[in-house]
Amino acid sequence: MTLAPWRSPLARALHRNRSLPYARYLQLATVHADGRPANRTVVFRGFLDETNQLKFVTDARSDKAEQIEHNAWSEACWYFPNTREQFRLSGKLTLVRMNCADESAVKARQRSWQELSDAARLQFAWAHPGKPRDENGFNPLQPDSVIPLPHFCLLLLNPTRVDHLELRGNPQNRRLYWFDAANDWFVQDINP
Amino acid sequence: MTLAPWRSPLARALHRNRSLPYARYLQLATVHADGRPANRTVVFRGFLDETNQLKFVTDARSDKAEQIEHNAWSEACWYFPNTREQFRLSGKLTLVRMNCADESAVKARQRSWQELSDAARLQFAWAHPGKPRDENGFNPLQPDSVIPLPHFCLLLLNPTRVDHLELRGNPQNRRLYWFDAANDWFVQDINP
Repeated sequence: MTLAPWRSPLARALHRNRSLPYARYLQLATVHADGRPANRTVVFRGFLDETNQLKFVTDARSDKAEQIEHNAWSEACWYFPNTREQFRLSGKLTLVRMNCADESAVKARQRSWQELSDAARLQFAWAHPGKPRDENGFNPLQPDSVIPLPHFCLLLLNPTRVDHLELRGNPQNRRLYWFDAANDWFVQDINP
Repeated sequence: MTLAPWRSPLARALHRNRSLPYARYLQLATVHADGRPANRTVVFRGFLDETNQLKFVTDARSDKAEQIEHNAWSEACWYFPNTREQFRLSGKLTLVRMNCADESAVKARQRSWQELSDAARLQFAWAHPGKPRDENGFNPLQPDSVIPLPHFCLLLLNPTRVDHLELRGNPQNRRLYWFDAANDWFVQDINP
């Protein structure tokens, strides 16, 4: 695997915005079974090994797990405040559940669990997300730090189209990267 | 019209994050004709008169104009860094084009044009967004500040479901607001 050509400008953006913890937050859009869009903030957890797939973590009990089973397509929108640039990353999502058949994905899921803070792991033991508030559902035992809780999922985004907009500059710069069937990345400057 | 109950926490978030210009940026998800999601950053331009509809501006030549004609549903995701809270606002979009039949909407479109800065108005005279880069397409004459350019659009989001998450607090607080057929807003605390 070679690094996709959008990895370099994305790495630069992450570096130049590293003073802001929330520069690692992005918005992930998916589609409900009824065709309506959903959109929520997720935390970027780095890239999967030697791939171009972005890692996130999620709860199998959350609405997005169901949405992804129905329609794997997603677009992530990532705005970097310090450098005033935006990446839109579109591609398919893969939800790595406890019972996933892919052994290397199962291992990646375990590593992602182990890399979480104790506080982040504890949230996976909280009451069912999105259900009516259960005040007794937030005092669980601290879960094991090695073996993930059953509903902990690793979520992977494999971008096949990336739209990079730099608001600084007059006119602004905008560049499109797309992956085509011949297994190669193409790049084109487009109008902002 | 009465203010929807989520307007008060949203106004508070805007006030407490007013030191950050980008706290007025949010991510708007729509759905392509092929069923894939799209997601981009937009600038909040206030509320339409005495309604609960959020105002944005866009270009009729942009992809989202076409998406909205096909599927008006949207979810906006709005993260406030200073207060660490997120609003997810779902509802239908209305695109107010030049030839809109609704007279009050046409007037609102004109006011939105007049409220833009010269620099923002100038961008609507730039070359066709998303087309291959045209280096000669970025030196237009400054457009009239009163009469909008033909492809300038006002974009309205009328939320009917709002999911407010506060990351501060242990456990976190999450509250759902939804508008029901009986013309009223309902509120429920839910698990984060």
